[in-house]
Amino acid sequence: MTKNRDVLTLLPEGQRVEYARGEVLADVLVRAGLPLSLYCHKRGLCGKCLVKIVRGELALPDDLERTLAARLEWPAGYRLACRLVLDSPLAIEVPARSLVREVPILETGTSTDVLPEPAVKKYAVDGRALSFDRAASCFDAVASALGAKNLTCGDGVLGKLPVVPGGLFTAVVYDDRTLIDLEPGDTTGRCLGAAVDLGTSTVVVDVLDLVSGQSLGRASAVNSQAAYGADVVSRLTYAFERPDHLQRLRRAITRQVAELIREASAQAGDSPGGVRDIVVAGNTAMNHLLLGVAVESLAVLPFEAVFSRLPPLDAASAGLDLSSAARLYVVPNIRSFIGGDITAGLAASGLAKRKGTWLFVDLGTNGEIVLKKGRELIAASTAAGPAFEGMNISCGMLAVRGAVDRAGWRDGFVLSTVGNEPPRGLCGSGILDVLAVALDQGLIAPDGKVVGPARSLALAPGISLTQADVRNVQLAAAAVKTGVRMMLREFRVGPQDLQGVLLAGAFGNALDIGHAMRLGLIPVLPLDRVAFVGNSSLAGAKKLLLSAPARAEAEDLVRKIHHYSLAADARFQDEFIEAMEFKPDTGGGA
Amino acid sequence: MTKNRDVLTLLPEGQRVEYARGEVLADVLVRAGLPLSLYCHKRGLCGKCLVKIVRGELALPDDLERTLAARLEWPAGYRLACRLVLDSPLAIEVPARSLVREVPILETGTSTDVLPEPAVKKYAVDGRALSFDRAASCFDAVASALGAKNLTCGDGVLGKLPVVPGGLFTAVVYDDRTLIDLEPGDTTGRCLGAAVDLGTSTVVVDVLDLVSGQSLGRASAVNSQAAYGADVVSRLTYAFERPDHLQRLRRAITRQVAELIREASAQAGDSPGGVRDIVVAGNTAMNHLLLGVAVESLAVLPFEAVFSRLPPLDAASAGLDLSSAARLYVVPNIRSFIGGDITAGLAASGLAKRKGTWLFVDLGTNGEIVLKKGRELIAASTAAGPAFEGMNISCGMLAVRGAVDRAGWRDGFVLSTVGNEPPRGLCGSGILDVLAVALDQGLIAPDGKVVGPARSLALAPGISLTQADVRNVQLAAAAVKTGVRMMLREFRVGPQDLQGVLLAGAFGNALDIGHAMRLGLIPVLPLDRVAFVGNSSLAGAKKLLLSAPARAEAEDLVRKIHHYSLAADARFQDEFIEAMEFKPDTGGGA
Repeated sequence: MTKNRDVLTLLPEGQRVEYARGEVLADVLVRAGLPLSLYCHKRGLCGKCLVKIVRGELALPDDLERTLAARLEWPAGYRLACRLVLDSPLAIEVPARSLVREVPILETGTSTDVLPEPAVKKYAVDGRALSFDRAASCFDAVASALGAKNLTCGDGVLGKLPVVPGGLFTAVVYDDRTLIDLEPGDTTGRCLGAAVDLGTSTVVVDVLDLVSGQSLGRASAVNSQAAYGADVVSRLTYAFERPDHLQRLRRAITRQVAELIREASAQAGDSPGGVRDIVVAGNTAMNHLLLGVAVESLAVLPFEAVFSRLPPLDAASAGLDLSSAARLYVVPNIRSFIGGDITAGLAASGLAKRKGTWLFVDLGTNGEIVLKKGRELIAASTAAGPAFEGMNISCGMLAVRGAVDRAGWRDGFVLSTVGNEPPRGLCGSGILDVLAVALDQGLIAPDGKVVGPARSLALAPGISLTQADVRNVQLAAAAVKTGVRMMLREFRVGPQDLQGVLLAGAFGNALDIGHAMRLGLIPVLPLDRVAFVGNSSLAGAKKLLLSAPARAEAEDLVRKIHHYSLAADARFQDEFIEAMEFKPDTGGGA
Repeated sequence: MTKNRDVLTLLPEGQRVEYARGEVLADVLVRAGLPLSLYCHKRGLCGKCLVKIVRGELALPDDLERTLAARLEWPAGYRLACRLVLDSPLAIEVPARSLVREVPILETGTSTDVLPEPAVKKYAVDGRALSFDRAASCFDAVASALGAKNLTCGDGVLGKLPVVPGGLFTAVVYDDRTLIDLEPGDTTGRCLGAAVDLGTSTVVVDVLDLVSGQSLGRASAVNSQAAYGADVVSRLTYAFERPDHLQRLRRAITRQVAELIREASAQAGDSPGGVRDIVVAGNTAMNHLLLGVAVESLAVLPFEAVFSRLPPLDAASAGLDLSSAARLYVVPNIRSFIGGDITAGLAASGLAKRKGTWLFVDLGTNGEIVLKKGRELIAASTAAGPAFEGMNISCGMLAVRGAVDRAGWRDGFVLSTVGNEPPRGLCGSGILDVLAVALDQGLIAPDGKVVGPARSLALAPGISLTQADVRNVQLAAAAVKTGVRMMLREFRVGPQDLQGVLLAGAFGNALDIGHAMRLGLIPVLPLDRVAFVGNSSLAGAKKLLLSAPARAEAEDLVRKIHHYSLAADARFQDEFIEAMEFKPDTGGGA
């Protein structure tokens, strides 16, 4: 031990950590690998890095710490790690509540963990202790109390400033940079956020505690824009039929999102005003309609989105009125047909950080395909049509109760249904299973022709798959297959080079991977290299809600991801025709 | 001449400038001291750095330059200095229109020059040439065409994006960072701004061309809030009488400012929509009322402003509807009683950049005093009351036609009036002159007592200065004198240390400096060290309108200026009583 060094003992384990005198305890603990809560970035504002002093002599706490200790009523013998300069041997205990933990996000097949570091934070301030010595104004005094010199003032906050500083109040701050609201009293115990999966069919809202990362409530509903069109194309058409239609679509969805936030907040035992940050992950068209942005450019050549990344918006200005100021973060679109839902999915699956070569495929009306090769990211989209979602299929249906979701063969089709109810129709995964089984049994030829005079596969009373149905699935599958094959070839990746395939989208976990390979939908790989990432859009929205650094990473990803236009490639047509054949893709054609 | 160097000849003078091959012509010209216009920061967008090639062999222009040349129809033989890489000897002429010139701002006694570098700029873009190769969206394609990678999208612009890019359009950009509007066609020929001197009594609006810096129109009117109170205090009182009163005051002034901008724009032959940037210099109370911010904190201890610096606002959101998107920059308040008008005045007078020790005094209802000593800036305010503006004086009036503005003595008072009309009353400068003359003639004692039984100085038929009038001026003068003396003493500055005194405010250029010294209002100094800076608030607003860098400097000044609270100093009362005596201040008391 050199002259200027001492030892910190961490009880009860007795771990010893050496430090140089003059170091701040919080820094020493972080260096020692403890996930100490640094919510307020060591500004002594939040009291979340409290440690218990077991042995040792310490300088007295400063004014800031004494005031905080009195307000938060913490017991004697506790000190703020971020304010404690070490100068003699010390033994401490770090309470569990002073540590941050990664929160598991469970929407996805492969779970993703996130360390909460929210964009919106709350700090309590004692108005009576505001100092005007060096502050030019009430706002500057608040900024100074928050230790945020370059704080800017959000719209509408000026009106609250002169009133609140009388007693204890709470500052709601975005990105430690913008004051977005002030509340009377200490309301730091509660700061909510909403993650919104804005799907064309369904809207799901999760309300989370932004500090702990816990999910507190959920609400979902069929997208209310469905009244104006079932799918994206019909809504876009409706939107540019008449100028007021776009705003009608906008109002429908903004009202619904606000209502779902209200509902999920109520489940959390809170008012919607508790929600201060909203993250929306939607496809490009849904994002445009949410903001009332004209969609003509999405529908005509060269099919471009109006925007990709946007700065955080004021939720009320964007039509989401929640009774308190909140920010709205729209997860950036990658390209016209590759929306924020995919960006969110990539964030949830941590694709950019995975080692090696990976394929991410989102199967829905559009097949979005992202290939990660080394540090390169390439994205493409291909129009699969709605067959994978059970649409445009004579006995097709969504994956709800009674839908055939799996099929096998034991001297005839063996069907299983959602909820084990009597079969009412076929959902996407059931259709693919039926097709794979029928191919193996010779009931369908590799070119898709249904064998036999009936030109139809009878599956259960009143449920069959017709030749036309098979053709529709064939087209959908061919679109995805073509996309995957062309991307792999363009970027010189063989199926064997793939570290793994991540499957997101309509099928959930229901898809039989072996069958998907049998049909050629994904390349043939050892089964353990294929993983489902489920509703990665909602998972990503939650991750981006809880972690401001994850947003920065997602924006960085959108900036550097390369768009590969399948349609612009002259080989697309030939490839597509070849892909119409149902056969496993072993990369032989590459 | 070494191997890699060549010579550029500037015609017609023949000046020779050496350069290294590979250098860009614009850089070489700037290094040679030419004030070349770099409006678009060398991004090849504006065509303002055009030079005529007289001799020399050049590589052909690139696509960007060819497109611009075609659009702006410049003659053959002209090239963009910012795109031209030099690699062989060259002789050029730089046309006068490719040079920027400092614009003199004439509101002030000592004129100030400013190099136009506006915050709002316009760039024409050819929508047909937008590239989507690497752009994720229409917005990104526009950002890329503007060479502004980190461009953010202002509110309301998203709605215009998908429509405009068909043909030629113009992007209106704030701070080269935020796209605030798009206009069809090339409208770069016209980009206006408005400088607003928001006085308690009078509002003056100047509309300027942001590129040339030329003033194009002016409109002024009595502040329409006067209907709710003649002075600041009565308006503040009105504002917190009832909640809707604040908004009433706000509406009155925002409507008026918008109307004056309309009027001044019409003089400029333009629509108000041409105005894209507005700079308002007002005192702290006027700034609060303009934005509808509660004024309670200004009126009760500890008398603090709600805000000092604000980010640039959206003019329409702030109630200034001009038919096109515009930004509103409120010149930052220094402190509760030292407003943005003083900040503007300091900017106009260039106080922070002057060498040595300087005193800036703004004489009005408040006396604002700023002392610059070395790199330190100290500001104080003192409540003088309205006597200097001719108010609370029995025969007082504003400095309008018929007001006695100067007085001397030749066997009796010799009066001169504004407009040489028959005297109708006394304005501030006239009152001070009369007092100084009366002191010299023994008609008033140094303690302010009017000699003789009438207790009144008869000046002209119906015009006199009463004992009560003298007392009012005495109080006003004592407030200012006390402030100046205490500041000089506190910061160990004797009058002889002062490089100069800058006088702003009510008196304009009419004040007799010798008389002001005779009364002790300003310290005794050689007369040539005292300069008038006139309406420095308007001049400052114009300077800050034309120069974004000047705004940054002003904000920096507000950040570092130290507030000296006279009222909090225990010696104030004694000093004030002593200052009641009319006598020259030679610094002897320091």
